[in-house]
Amino acid sequence: MIFRRFASTSSLPPTIRQLFQTDLVSFKSKRVQINGWVKSIRRQKRIAFAVISDGSSPQSLQAVFTDVTLAKSLTNGSCVRLSGVLSDSVGPEQDREVQVDAVEYLGECDPAEYPIAKQSLTVEYLRDHAHLRARTVPVASMIRFRDQTQRTLRRFFEDEDFTYVHTPIITANDCEGAGDTFSVTSSPTPATHSQSQAPDKEKKSHFFGRPAYLTVSSQLHLEAVASSLARVYTLSPCFRAERSQTGRHLSEFWMLEAEWAFATQLRDLCDVVERSIKSVLNQQSSELPALHQDIPDVRKASLEAASRWDKSWASISYTDAVAELQKYQDAYRKFRFDPTWGGPLQSEHERWLAEQLVGGPVFVTDYPTSLKPFYMRANENGNTVACFDLLVPHLGEIVGGSLREERLPLLEEAVKLHGLDPEEYGWYLDLRKYGGAPHGGFGLGFDRLVQWISGIENIRECIPMPRYAGRMLL
Amino acid sequence: MIFRRFASTSSLPPTIRQLFQTDLVSFKSKRVQINGWVKSIRRQKRIAFAVISDGSSPQSLQAVFTDVTLAKSLTNGSCVRLSGVLSDSVGPEQDREVQVDAVEYLGECDPAEYPIAKQSLTVEYLRDHAHLRARTVPVASMIRFRDQTQRTLRRFFEDEDFTYVHTPIITANDCEGAGDTFSVTSSPTPATHSQSQAPDKEKKSHFFGRPAYLTVSSQLHLEAVASSLARVYTLSPCFRAERSQTGRHLSEFWMLEAEWAFATQLRDLCDVVERSIKSVLNQQSSELPALHQDIPDVRKASLEAASRWDKSWASISYTDAVAELQKYQDAYRKFRFDPTWGGPLQSEHERWLAEQLVGGPVFVTDYPTSLKPFYMRANENGNTVACFDLLVPHLGEIVGGSLREERLPLLEEAVKLHGLDPEEYGWYLDLRKYGGAPHGGFGLGFDRLVQWISGIENIRECIPMPRYAGRMLL
Repeated sequence: MIFRRFASTSSLPPTIRQLFQTDLVSFKSKRVQINGWVKSIRRQKRIAFAVISDGSSPQSLQAVFTDVTLAKSLTNGSCVRLSGVLSDSVGPEQDREVQVDAVEYLGECDPAEYPIAKQSLTVEYLRDHAHLRARTVPVASMIRFRDQTQRTLRRFFEDEDFTYVHTPIITANDCEGAGDTFSVTSSPTPATHSQSQAPDKEKKSHFFGRPAYLTVSSQLHLEAVASSLARVYTLSPCFRAERSQTGRHLSEFWMLEAEWAFATQLRDLCDVVERSIKSVLNQQSSELPALHQDIPDVRKASLEAASRWDKSWASISYTDAVAELQKYQDAYRKFRFDPTWGGPLQSEHERWLAEQLVGGPVFVTDYPTSLKPFYMRANENGNTVACFDLLVPHLGEIVGGSLREERLPLLEEAVKLHGLDPEEYGWYLDLRKYGGAPHGGFGLGFDRLVQWISGIENIRECIPMPRYAGRMLL
Repeated sequence: MIFRRFASTSSLPPTIRQLFQTDLVSFKSKRVQINGWVKSIRRQKRIAFAVISDGSSPQSLQAVFTDVTLAKSLTNGSCVRLSGVLSDSVGPEQDREVQVDAVEYLGECDPAEYPIAKQSLTVEYLRDHAHLRARTVPVASMIRFRDQTQRTLRRFFEDEDFTYVHTPIITANDCEGAGDTFSVTSSPTPATHSQSQAPDKEKKSHFFGRPAYLTVSSQLHLEAVASSLARVYTLSPCFRAERSQTGRHLSEFWMLEAEWAFATQLRDLCDVVERSIKSVLNQQSSELPALHQDIPDVRKASLEAASRWDKSWASISYTDAVAELQKYQDAYRKFRFDPTWGGPLQSEHERWLAEQLVGGPVFVTDYPTSLKPFYMRANENGNTVACFDLLVPHLGEIVGGSLREERLPLLEEAVKLHGLDPEEYGWYLDLRKYGGAPHGGFGLGFDRLVQWISGIENIRECIPMPRYAGRMLL
């Protein structure tokens, strides 16, 4: 699996990011061409300045016009090709500038009409202009930060010998058994479709011969491949038709899911989660200064503390967590919902555990069987399963994982107990019947990870084109 | 954008691939644990051998049992943990083996019931056992080859300063305007849905407030981001509700799409396509020996020739291609369809161009306007557009791309000419109205690329869990 590095020379001109990285000497007295968009202009009597960006990095290049007539028609948002000589800047803001001697106008932009000409626009306004909002500094930074984050995660799993798998988006199964799925039909939907249709005609009308849904999780598919390739992962779009309009839910979101054979201990799963996320927390991203501009220092300190390799994240059992929550509730009555063993942890509980009790990320483990899906591995005590949720300050759950039940009789029992059709899950049971390995895995909400680390308030600003109930632009 | 390399030590045990790579000295007289599945067993009186795979590479480890009682219950397909000492093998097939002194049975596999116990099974039979087929050598190799190929492509675009963008899967627009899309509804679909519904009630019933489809291409979305980040790409699932049952169509397929600003020449687009695919052709993949086992030498030679950096791929205009096809047809009357200027190139034409006329990959450029979507850039002559298809031997088209029309008046005209609603495409026109850059891009059928290079006959064997009309397992 050796890759020969790409050798042939690039036919693409250098980006501004590359111009900033290149040794100035190699450009000495050579003219360069800069392609980009005008972000701002400052005109004086004998000189004009323009800030040029091509989106390749948060850095902009300063264009200096000693011939002010060249800059006469420049407007914010217009697209230009500048020619000139690169040099170190004398100004404090840019460390490199171009002395322009020729301007080519590629695309005009009338500032009177330009919808995003103003400096500060509300996030709601920008959401309404989804096709243009990547032109603003924070959204451009977010998109590049997403790319960096997925690169770091991919590298982590490549280094750990995981194979990336393209799991299907259209599926027949609903992994969580929780409803809220989207249906897929070949359009146009027949208007005459009615419930009185005969079953065989019904079957014929399905494009795939059976009802089709958008995947809510790739886990079961990954388990099938992990029963041969041992270590697999994916970063795949997932879909939930949730109508809740919170700042941390999307109808279309991206989930990193990993699944591997021969895992027998919950702490080993948590360790992989912790190391993969710490590798992201420790990536040196030049986007964070722009993204962190408005978040309080205490949040930055919290992220900094979570990133430390020498300090392991905390872990607490669900049972102990509920006991702590109850103690606090008894003393202060601050929670709207009373914490009770057997009930789900509410958002307010999750945040208290991470923010108050632990003061950092915390794995909550071994939830009651009744709260979790059928495939999680039963603990010895019989009333909890070997699972965990990772809760982080300011956000709550960003990862969920478990050992999977590999013992066929117990899994068959769980399928029945959850009211699922054993026939439908025949293939899943087969994975245990024929050389089943102990195994486990997790799903990490990629957009939420970006939200947590970037400090962006609403998850709708953590993805270029968000989809949620009632809204889909472009 | 510097990434600190991940430093903390792995908690995961070494895979067989890693054991093959590790210097033997570091294991000298140390016991190792091997987790894997039994692929075959050979028993003699005083010694037994088993081939063990964990799917981490095409290499299997030979397990040697000098105590034959340890191997007594081993069966094909069973999952085991072996302990012993690693050493160089004396046998010709494996270059490394483990002398086993302890066996732990993790998952049994009854060979009498195991559906894939036999050595040679038809691809159709394996399609029916999609959940188990990754356990066969060719399918496991295909999955790892997909991973390698996407890594190589990603690295190529990272090196060229492209940003990876998560484009939406659920969308309101149909990029090609070609129909054959899948509709998305929140399930269950209301059974009482009828055409007599009032329009505002109709709107309310849509989860996103308007009809939603699965994307057929991410291009238009990429163009929006490219108008800020300049160079963007994605490797995204795409969907077409095609009922054609060919060996090179899937209903759910993966497409690498790249889009970049400041491109003005078709040959520059083709150059990026050629270099990106050559980087894949030149990746040293240890999977190819298994995949290429049954393909004729002439195909291997053809791939080898296409991979050469020092030999550029051919290029021919649509007009010249049709002239060549007509000459051949006039002389030999071999085509079922007469080639005519203005008509689409048929599959038989495409293959003749690549296989006979050129004898290698060929870019066919500048198709008639009427054959192509509205967004392609008009050539000076007025009846063709600045586009290309890449045709390869044995398969036909695997890439299509074009310069995009950046001139607002011409684009507005094209929208009308194609009978599209200018209101629907208002956002797309905005991209030109406000600082539009000349730009272009392409879409590469990822599964077809895998098919071409691997030599796998049917595209259904080029993806772990294929979806096509009438069929969706798992």
